[in-house]
Amino acid sequence: MAYYIGVDIGGTNLKAGVVDGQGQIISESSVPTGADRPQDVVLSDILGAVMTSIAGAGISVKDVRAAGMGSPGMIDTEKGIVIYNNNLGWNDFHIGEKMSTALGIPARLENDADAAALGEVVAGCAKGAKSAMIITLGTGVGSGYVIDEKIFRGCEFGHMVIAYGGRKCTCGRHGCFEAYCSATGLINMTKEAIAEHPMSTLAEIAKTEGVVSGHTVFVAAEQGDAIAENIIDEYTGYLACGLANLINGLQPEVIGVGGGIGKQGERLLVPLREKVEREIYKGLPMPKIVSCTLGYKAGLIGAAMSVRDL
Amino acid sequence: MAYYIGVDIGGTNLKAGVVDGQGQIISESSVPTGADRPQDVVLSDILGAVMTSIAGAGISVKDVRAAGMGSPGMIDTEKGIVIYNNNLGWNDFHIGEKMSTALGIPARLENDADAAALGEVVAGCAKGAKSAMIITLGTGVGSGYVIDEKIFRGCEFGHMVIAYGGRKCTCGRHGCFEAYCSATGLINMTKEAIAEHPMSTLAEIAKTEGVVSGHTVFVAAEQGDAIAENIIDEYTGYLACGLANLINGLQPEVIGVGGGIGKQGERLLVPLREKVEREIYKGLPMPKIVSCTLGYKAGLIGAAMSVRDL
Repeated sequence: MAYYIGVDIGGTNLKAGVVDGQGQIISESSVPTGADRPQDVVLSDILGAVMTSIAGAGISVKDVRAAGMGSPGMIDTEKGIVIYNNNLGWNDFHIGEKMSTALGIPARLENDADAAALGEVVAGCAKGAKSAMIITLGTGVGSGYVIDEKIFRGCEFGHMVIAYGGRKCTCGRHGCFEAYCSATGLINMTKEAIAEHPMSTLAEIAKTEGVVSGHTVFVAAEQGDAIAENIIDEYTGYLACGLANLINGLQPEVIGVGGGIGKQGERLLVPLREKVEREIYKGLPMPKIVSCTLGYKAGLIGAAMSVRDL
Repeated sequence: MAYYIGVDIGGTNLKAGVVDGQGQIISESSVPTGADRPQDVVLSDILGAVMTSIAGAGISVKDVRAAGMGSPGMIDTEKGIVIYNNNLGWNDFHIGEKMSTALGIPARLENDADAAALGEVVAGCAKGAKSAMIITLGTGVGSGYVIDEKIFRGCEFGHMVIAYGGRKCTCGRHGCFEAYCSATGLINMTKEAIAEHPMSTLAEIAKTEGVVSGHTVFVAAEQGDAIAENIIDEYTGYLACGLANLINGLQPEVIGVGGGIGKQGERLLVPLREKVEREIYKGLPMPKIVSCTLGYKAGLIGAAMSVRDL
């Protein structure tokens, strides 16, 4: 049996696990990332979590073929370096080589969205797909593209402008896919509608919940609120536009929708598929559009699966 | 010395040539495509042009390793079939296998934009680039992506919406890259400006030339016409938006701009580069943006170079 280590470095916690060749997690371990501490201390915690997961699997490090890691930020995969990460405050963090040396096995570092996409292809919503695009609708819009179970690195379409001169994005451009289709984008649309219609069911629900989230509008729509239905219609219109761009441009066989908004499942996907089908180039096959199924485990599994060739 | 056959099937003419392993054309031959004739007759003409180019090179078909062909339309590369081409009126045209059988050498069929992109990478504007995106600004907007001198098939971003709800495109969507940035798009912008400003230098030039082309606005701008300068500013704004989307999304090392509008060279590229640099994601390296250099030869050379692995 071949075993691989997967490490998923998150803003809050980092997770390590032992994964088999089919993408099944054998054991896992999680510790706080504590990204503001010195790099050697963080690295020591990563190694600790890795060894804990190895012990938990009842195996030794000698039974492990290779270690794969996923980190947010700009990654140099060749060199195993986190070049830059704004949220974690990391610059030039050499993770790959140090992990490889300490564990005595080959190691590789990937972007976390890329790793998660590979996880969904090996063991999740896009299992068996020749090509799959995984779109994460969270604080931002992430994208990862996997062809023949290999990560197609650097495929990042969150900052693709779909509305020239439109909503200002955090990146400085106007009208990015992310500015409309992230959870943040949907929350902004919801807040604007609440301000315009303070007596609506939508506004009442937001008041009861005490906070506007990416789910508020779906709860209100379930109760028949027309304003909420309009927002969902508008939101899925922008989302379909971005996805149709990617389908016309790259023709993935499967599109997996994940992140906070992805959890809405069919409530999101039914109107989305209908709009995408109208928008894509005539003659192109309609890809399967599905919800991601692995949740937080996608990154860990995908990181481990990214080193099966090492 | 290794020799390859390249065939470029165009709407008007088809060209065949003998090309060496470095992408230099040894000899070439051209005949009318006559796409409305029976498929066997067209195929016979392709074979005739191929044999003429082989004779012209002073070699025999036995000296040729493989034949590569580029055709417009939707291509099944695995099977060597033109599935569908609107302009040529072709459906299910099995070119690959028949060519291979007749010539007694391996043959492969690629999309013509993909082949042309490979030609520019092997022997043209993007020589030596690890990754290059070739954008053709003609009747439509074509795109071809080449990584490590291999065609990344099906990369087609002409129908990527950049302006949600914007100009109607021939594909049925609104606001496509092609609707703004093709020669047709620029001609439309020019005509609208002429209608609004019938006494402008731009209008006079169009009247003298008897027709509005993609170059009219550049001629007027050279004569200091402010309206023409505004159109170029607007046009390069849209073009920069589309290119920045592709740079953020795929990070090509080189972007080659070809087609009719690409011939403007630095008059187009100087304002374009400035706008692209402002739009791309902070921290990403700015790709080289250059004019294509091979013209019509790109398709022939690229088709031949696409079979170097056969």
